[in-house]
Amino acid sequence: MRTIIECVPNISEGKDRASIDAIAAAVRGVTGVRLLDVSSDASHNRSVLTFVGDGPAVRAGVLALFEAALSRIDLRSHRGEHPRMGAVDVVPFVPIEGVTMADCVALARKVGAEVAARFQIPVYLYEEASANPARKNLEDIRRGEFEGLAKKMATAGWTPDFGPATPHPSAGAAVIGARMPLIAYNINLATDRLDVAKKIAAAIRHSSGGYRFVKAMGITLEDRGIVQVSMNLTNFEKTPIFRVFETVKREAARYGVAILESEIVGLVPAAALMSTAEFYLQIEGFKPAQVLENKLRTEN
Amino acid sequence: MRTIIECVPNISEGKDRASIDAIAAAVRGVTGVRLLDVSSDASHNRSVLTFVGDGPAVRAGVLALFEAALSRIDLRSHRGEHPRMGAVDVVPFVPIEGVTMADCVALARKVGAEVAARFQIPVYLYEEASANPARKNLEDIRRGEFEGLAKKMATAGWTPDFGPATPHPSAGAAVIGARMPLIAYNINLATDRLDVAKKIAAAIRHSSGGYRFVKAMGITLEDRGIVQVSMNLTNFEKTPIFRVFETVKREAARYGVAILESEIVGLVPAAALMSTAEFYLQIEGFKPAQVLENKLRTEN
Repeated sequence: MRTIIECVPNISEGKDRASIDAIAAAVRGVTGVRLLDVSSDASHNRSVLTFVGDGPAVRAGVLALFEAALSRIDLRSHRGEHPRMGAVDVVPFVPIEGVTMADCVALARKVGAEVAARFQIPVYLYEEASANPARKNLEDIRRGEFEGLAKKMATAGWTPDFGPATPHPSAGAAVIGARMPLIAYNINLATDRLDVAKKIAAAIRHSSGGYRFVKAMGITLEDRGIVQVSMNLTNFEKTPIFRVFETVKREAARYGVAILESEIVGLVPAAALMSTAEFYLQIEGFKPAQVLENKLRTEN
Repeated sequence: MRTIIECVPNISEGKDRASIDAIAAAVRGVTGVRLLDVSSDASHNRSVLTFVGDGPAVRAGVLALFEAALSRIDLRSHRGEHPRMGAVDVVPFVPIEGVTMADCVALARKVGAEVAARFQIPVYLYEEASANPARKNLEDIRRGEFEGLAKKMATAGWTPDFGPATPHPSAGAAVIGARMPLIAYNINLATDRLDVAKKIAAAIRHSSGGYRFVKAMGITLEDRGIVQVSMNLTNFEKTPIFRVFETVKREAARYGVAILESEIVGLVPAAALMSTAEFYLQIEGFKPAQVLENKLRTEN
């Protein structure tokens, strides 16, 4: 069976097309790597690359990415709306096929150590790769950003997992780790009542007592005159999409509000939709090998 | 994009292992063909082969199958519980990926003409490949079986689509066509009342006024003390699995009966489960390219 790991590095450059193209080209040039997407946001001054390959290929892709980014990005002159503390800010490895989370954790540690040694950049491990509960969430690690990094690194508990105990002058520090695929999932409500969307978001998100792997907020879609519960599902195996949907539906009904529709933004793993079909159809004993396309794939 | 057509020929040999193996080997030996499964039933005295490939590969696979089967199967001495009128009895082509039903219909006609010319076997086109409403259903074409074939072929309306106007002495006639993938789908009810299962089956199946692409019957699962609505869904795009499930659930509720569980027997196309998730989650504007695995595949 083939091995597919997805890597979704975020770099602190979203305006200079020549720099972005050069960094993307460095990744694309690595044998065994397939660069699927590059999305840049000028106001955030940040780009997100998505590439896949087996372990050795994505490792080489990340090293090529750092090499290309370090000569082109200087955080001392970087401005943008999105928080950041590194030229290469975050590098998550995501298990997709024929590979476990433990494999991705091991890869994150190996690549983290290599990046630190080769480029003299402090590296923090995050999410599944973190061994330290206080340094699991990206937001906690990045708080204070590049400008506050030297001071933060000097305080207790913030020695990096790999590399020097002080920031790289132009590149800050990097956060490397492993996580499940994210699903960006929105549910539109048949109402213009923002308070309802906000109450539902609060009911389902982890930070205020909801599901462990849900981030949510209520927003207004001005052009349509309706409100939306906008979510990130950070582990669809443990907090499945159908349970979130049913809970939102039930909470909305309490206010006399119906669900208008939902939407998946960007990519979704097939397994997240398969498990939804299994749930609603009450299918017992279903195996992934029963999906015709999976059978064709494994017999390749 | 790659092209995948599935071919599921039924041959009239289910006992003699040497013959079955030799026929399977002939198919497997064709370049570009992947033989996924061979299922034999001794009491039916019949085997079902499942193989995939692009158009030219499955065409060559079918010709190799006929060549190998004709020298090993003689219907004059064939006995079995399953109705049949050909040594190679039925050959459906099924569109799986990167190919339309129209492509499979064209292939069925081309291969049908070749089989008739090369082996002097009368060929009837069926299902989507049939241009004659009276000769669309396999059961209608096969009625009378091998033993009644000479008489049937002599009556008005039964001139074959290709080949001689009389049966092949040992191989009878072949039925070749194109159809959608079949889904074998069962719903178990939380009751032992067979009358309820039979009433629900009658309500949903095409033959008694139900959905166009549902075949259904009510049966008892003796070992479990419950009943089952046992179904074949013959076109999951036009009669989707979720609509069948919801209708069975509603009809059962009318008798105070709940659905215990459902089961998919054998293979199911991913699209049948994807559309189920879309339905229940009320997902708008979803595209197959959003499924991560599809994206990986198309970028290969």
